[in-house]
Amino acid sequence: MDPVKEAERIKDQIIAWRRDFHMWPELKYEEERTSKIVEEHLREWGYRIKRVGTGIIADIGEGEKTIALRADMDALPVQEENDVPYKSRVPGKMHACGHDAHTAMLLGAGKIIAEHIDEFNGRVRLVFQPAEEGGNGALKMIEGGALKGVDAIFGFHVWMDLPSGVIGIREGPFLAGAGFFEAKIIGKGGHGASPHETVDPIPIASEIVLALQTVVSRNVDPKETAVVSVTAINGGTTFNVIPEKVSLKGTFRFYKNEVGDILKKRIKEIAEGVSSAHGAKAKVSVQDLTPPTINDPDMAQFAREVAEKYGLRHGEVPPTMGAEDFAYYLQRVPGAFLALGIRNEEKGIVYPHHHPKFDVDEDVLHLGTAMEVALAREFLR
Amino acid sequence: MDPVKEAERIKDQIIAWRRDFHMWPELKYEEERTSKIVEEHLREWGYRIKRVGTGIIADIGEGEKTIALRADMDALPVQEENDVPYKSRVPGKMHACGHDAHTAMLLGAGKIIAEHIDEFNGRVRLVFQPAEEGGNGALKMIEGGALKGVDAIFGFHVWMDLPSGVIGIREGPFLAGAGFFEAKIIGKGGHGASPHETVDPIPIASEIVLALQTVVSRNVDPKETAVVSVTAINGGTTFNVIPEKVSLKGTFRFYKNEVGDILKKRIKEIAEGVSSAHGAKAKVSVQDLTPPTINDPDMAQFAREVAEKYGLRHGEVPPTMGAEDFAYYLQRVPGAFLALGIRNEEKGIVYPHHHPKFDVDEDVLHLGTAMEVALAREFLR
Amino acid sequence: MDPVKEAERIKDQIIAWRRDFHMWPELKYEEERTSKIVEEHLREWGYRIKRVGTGIIADIGEGEKTIALRADMDALPVQEENDVPYKSRVPGKMHACGHDAHTAMLLGAGKIIAEHIDEFNGRVRLVFQPAEEGGNGALKMIEGGALKGVDAIFGFHVWMDLPSGVIGIREGPFLAGAGFFEAKIIGKGGHGASPHETVDPIPIASEIVLALQTVVSRNVDPKETAVVSVTAINGGTTFNVIPEKVSLKGTFRFYKNEVGDILKKRIKEIAEGVSSAHGAKAKVSVQDLTPPTINDPDMAQFAREVAEKYGLRHGEVPPTMGAEDFAYYLQRVPGAFLALGIRNEEKGIVYPHHHPKFDVDEDVLHLGTAMEVALAREFLR
Amino acid sequence: MDPVKEAERIKDQIIAWRRDFHMWPELKYEEERTSKIVEEHLREWGYRIKRVGTGIIADIGEGEKTIALRADMDALPVQEENDVPYKSRVPGKMHACGHDAHTAMLLGAGKIIAEHIDEFNGRVRLVFQPAEEGGNGALKMIEGGALKGVDAIFGFHVWMDLPSGVIGIREGPFLAGAGFFEAKIIGKGGHGASPHETVDPIPIASEIVLALQTVVSRNVDPKETAVVSVTAINGGTTFNVIPEKVSLKGTFRFYKNEVGDILKKRIKEIAEGVSSAHGAKAKVSVQDLTPPTINDPDMAQFAREVAEKYGLRHGEVPPTMGAEDFAYYLQRVPGAFLALGIRNEEKGIVYPHHHPKFDVDEDVLHLGTAMEVALAREFLR
Repeated sequence: MDPVKEAERIKDQIIAWRRDFHMWPELKYEEERTSKIVEEHLREWGYRIKRVGTGIIADIGEGEKTIALRADMDALPVQEENDVPYKSRVPGKMHACGHDAHTAMLLGAGKIIAEHIDEFNGRVRLVFQPAEEGGNGALKMIEGGALKGVDAIFGFHVWMDLPSGVIGIREGPFLAGAGFFEAKIIGKGGHGASPHETVDPIPIASEIVLALQTVVSRNVDPKETAVVSVTAINGGTTFNVIPEKVSLKGTFRFYKNEVGDILKKRIKEIAEGVSSAHGAKAKVSVQDLTPPTINDPDMAQFAREVAEKYGLRHGEVPPTMGAEDFAYYLQRVPGAFLALGIRNEEKGIVYPHHHPKFDVDEDVLHLGTAMEVALAREFLR
Repeated sequence: MDPVKEAERIKDQIIAWRRDFHMWPELKYEEERTSKIVEEHLREWGYRIKRVGTGIIADIGEGEKTIALRADMDALPVQEENDVPYKSRVPGKMHACGHDAHTAMLLGAGKIIAEHIDEFNGRVRLVFQPAEEGGNGALKMIEGGALKGVDAIFGFHVWMDLPSGVIGIREGPFLAGAGFFEAKIIGKGGHGASPHETVDPIPIASEIVLALQTVVSRNVDPKETAVVSVTAINGGTTFNVIPEKVSLKGTFRFYKNEVGDILKKRIKEIAEGVSSAHGAKAKVSVQDLTPPTINDPDMAQFAREVAEKYGLRHGEVPPTMGAEDFAYYLQRVPGAFLALGIRNEEKGIVYPHHHPKFDVDEDVLHLGTAMEVALAREFLR
Repeated sequence: MDPVKEAERIKDQIIAWRRDFHMWPELKYEEERTSKIVEEHLREWGYRIKRVGTGIIADIGEGEKTIALRADMDALPVQEENDVPYKSRVPGKMHACGHDAHTAMLLGAGKIIAEHIDEFNGRVRLVFQPAEEGGNGALKMIEGGALKGVDAIFGFHVWMDLPSGVIGIREGPFLAGAGFFEAKIIGKGGHGASPHETVDPIPIASEIVLALQTVVSRNVDPKETAVVSVTAINGGTTFNVIPEKVSLKGTFRFYKNEVGDILKKRIKEIAEGVSSAHGAKAKVSVQDLTPPTINDPDMAQFAREVAEKYGLRHGEVPPTMGAEDFAYYLQRVPGAFLALGIRNEEKGIVYPHHHPKFDVDEDVLHLGTAMEVALAREFLR
Repeated sequence: MDPVKEAERIKDQIIAWRRDFHMWPELKYEEERTSKIVEEHLREWGYRIKRVGTGIIADIGEGEKTIALRADMDALPVQEENDVPYKSRVPGKMHACGHDAHTAMLLGAGKIIAEHIDEFNGRVRLVFQPAEEGGNGALKMIEGGALKGVDAIFGFHVWMDLPSGVIGIREGPFLAGAGFFEAKIIGKGGHGASPHETVDPIPIASEIVLALQTVVSRNVDPKETAVVSVTAINGGTTFNVIPEKVSLKGTFRFYKNEVGDILKKRIKEIAEGVSSAHGAKAKVSVQDLTPPTINDPDMAQFAREVAEKYGLRHGEVPPTMGAEDFAYYLQRVPGAFLALGIRNEEKGIVYPHHHPKFDVDEDVLHLGTAMEVALAREFLR
């Protein structure tokens, strides 16, 4: 069996699935329809199904080794602005990040693998997860047993920054670790004409914002990657009244956990220390959202060799500051997160992820399917 | 005629008027009922009436000189929390700044003056103005002719920071000049993980807030009085997205116009200059609200002598950073703005102006009336 | 005896003394020659002398009340640039603040008082003090007994901001309280290319400088007078090496001690708190130099009446942010510090105090003498 | 001929040369003795010599292709603190960066190559350059023709962060681009008690320091490497006087020229823009010192293959923020800058470059020589 030829054979089916999912997008943890369709197909093809909420763990084959392949199924609260036959039928919801394509690609792989299960010397597990977008669905799946007995895991993301059809492979950090923080600077309000009777939180919050710039500029090794962004500052409404408090919100990003630890420590120290220097209080919460997505070098190398062997076009994909909950799988099991290039200038497929005009070059989705099948087959040799 | 005795005689009437106005407060430029009552009385007493919207210019007597006496009539959007028989009958509106008392006091003076007009060697003008609270009613009255032919003007404010019954007199600056500013710092929004693709307005606005502190600390003569308060800073809502803009609002205060000019110039220069240094734009509007209320030294001295002559208790009143549109009259005509102490700890009358529990010691209102009559009589000798 | 006529009579003598002192200036605590001359005259005229280092306490007369009159004798380390016959004969030293005139004026008063001691119903004490310029000579004199038994004290300063011959009188704060601070911000030095291995004190010190601006702009009542100036910031020398520390120096000024207390507290809190927020240490020292010079209102009023009675021209003198150790006497004994106008545009006497071209209009010095004699005589009536 | 065996054979000679150079260090552009010794040997071995000041361009062999090998010869103004027989004989000068080793290694290579020139199918050029330490000697050599006709260039640096004997190879950016800036913030000085009469440069310079932090934190892609360090801030000396100006000095680092361009642009914009917002002037000079040292990927790969072929231990060397003028050769000709590990904990060879106790593990220097010979031979096949 040649994974590439098999995938070409069902190319139209993959596109049809993707369009169906695209027309009926479901937000995180609401992937009822999508997961029902996925489950029905998998059952039909002989997979052993375990449900984890709207997520699915589907096994096929037996043997010493197990490889997991993962897709995410949730859509975004975005109003689609594309004028296409398969445009989202649900107002205010859209597959603007390509999870419809991920699901369709893996469904295709599931079909091919099932049809040729005797050529796979081990067990293949398909993981269809909910809520990748800000829901940490991966953690739910892991709690539900998705990694039990798994030796390696691979996932795919369609990628607007790669030319259509190219498989992007990278060793080490690929997507960033991400977290959020919130700091409420609590002073004492009063009349704008009598600042001495207040503890004015506005200059204090402003000083904190500037001091936070030093986290990246001074506290982090310049050779490492880090971001601390204050994304919201809000306090006061009128022209006359000094408010009691100012609220700061923000995000931080990193590729290495030790860098993330510096960011978290310094954000808290600065907000609290500067407030205290001015007689104000800071209520600071700093929360991890997602760890960095770090590909195992051996697994990345393995993927490269597989692509090479099956004649699939591939290249190095640069890291991004975006975050992805596939990171949680990679914290526990060796594996790699791969990119499938979907940019196609001629077709006008150029809009960035999460954009209302985002679309994917459907003509290359089967290449993702082919790679998934090939990875499983080679890993289980 | 003895102004003090005459005022004592109608003390109950003054209190009754005040309670009536207190029960039916009207917001700025809506003083229909109040002005109707005032006008009816004045007409009855023989005043020549000119209407300026809800304001009244009322003249009596003839002669070479004209003295104007002014009261303001508008109430505030405050829900009264006093439990008194004359509590405001209008939900959400209250005479929480004592304009009810001002109107009643001047009405009492109008009555006494009319009854003894032959003892006044000149013309007395009563000015009942609307909209002192943020409406610059004084300017409307001036446009309407309130100062035409006027040689001197006096006004009264009940004063919680003076003991009940004491007339507060001050030379030079008494209340502050006030203005407002708004600065929209317009950068370029984007994702919190990609600050380099944005012009992040949050650190820029923060730098402006800190730089604005130097206006008072560095640019103004330390012997002069000045305030620049940023009272609102708002930009961004989420944890992820760097906003396009941040809005700053604030107020400034001063006693001397040349100081006010420095404040206005520097606020604009700093907001624009700092924004520009970072590739952002600042839309800055700086607006005068009220000039400083500066008493003519001779008129203040004259008031002191009048109080002395009639045995009215008086003292120096410290300046405040509050603002008052009586300032506009004093820009054009010599005069003085006087305070009438109303603080009475025993009666529990201690709450500051604009407070839901603000009240006045009614038992001293006739002293204000007496002083008004006395000022007119002595000025027109 | 008419103090003014008496003073006019010895006008040339006063000028001669002043010129002699001017030619032989002596720095703080080195006033050997000056004090020797003063002492010889006073002894000759019958004063009872007590030496306090280079200072002199000289009493004459007896009675229930004692008035003290004070002059300071020290010069400044300034190279005179005037081209006058009485130019300083001592290189690098100059009476650039008029203490030569103060000494001559009080010597003249001492002569007149001694000649007419029977017209003074009490004791007159002359205090010639050393080290007014940064030496707190006043404290030495107080320790030496200068205020023992004293009921009131007056002092004079020649004043470039008043027209020649006008006696400047002011109630309340006249000169400012002053103090100094120094903050060493101690981080951890290192290579400029590796900021993460340092605790960079330069951004920390910079943040402290900006935060210190809020002391005046936010923490002090805008109606009060206050200055906090960072006057020196020094850290690092090369282009490559992040220094271990940055040193900040500065001064603060105030008219009220409670304001001074706020300044001192906040300077320390800010330098320490901001440093601590960034993992650095701050060694902060905040030192009082001189309290504010606050004239007793009754004594200022008394001086006004005395000037009035003897036909001496007088006026209100505005406060200044300068400091003067006469403040220490006024902390302990009622009194007033007076100014004698010496500005004379025609004569080119316009250069500010401490300027190498500073000079005084000698033709009015006897008016200071006259006022001193008159104050003593009236106080002791 | 086997380069490794040949190098082993002359290992003692290489060490002897290194010790001789070490004992007689010469500062930048003063490499008289060193270059004389080098030249004499090269002439003896048949090289065609061209002098460029204290630098040497030495060619041997003929053919279509030319490979250049480069060493630097200058020492540092450091007082050696090692207690070794070959300790520097020149007070205050020391080979604390290993250029003695570089020169000895390349001299060894020159000897072997000359002895086996018939095995090299082309021309070998040895470049012994002066003034790598802050003198940009590379530029002088290039002007002198060092790269004329050169097809590839390689250089070596002994490396304390690699284990002894390992050849460090890296593709792309290896050392940083570096530059310097100086900003004089010119306001208007005055007395600390009268800030309003000054344009106080201290808060302005402080604001600039904080604003400069945003260059790295906001303006540069977080995935790129950049440093902006203010390393000196100096203004004012006394407690009383606000200075006229504050001087800022600093360095910046980067791996990509487009990043360097952002740094240079923003440093200038911020210093000038913020100064201007406060009525001050900024005299800003921003100077490139060295471009980033960027290895050609093909040449790095070639070096890896050469090391592999000859059994030389090699590995990836991480990039550093240090700078190196070899960058100028790589801007013009493909090539790679390689590292030779010299860290040897057992021998106590652990002190960082430029440290007074820096030393190299002499027992591995011949491996550098071997690699140089091998690179030339393979390149000229």
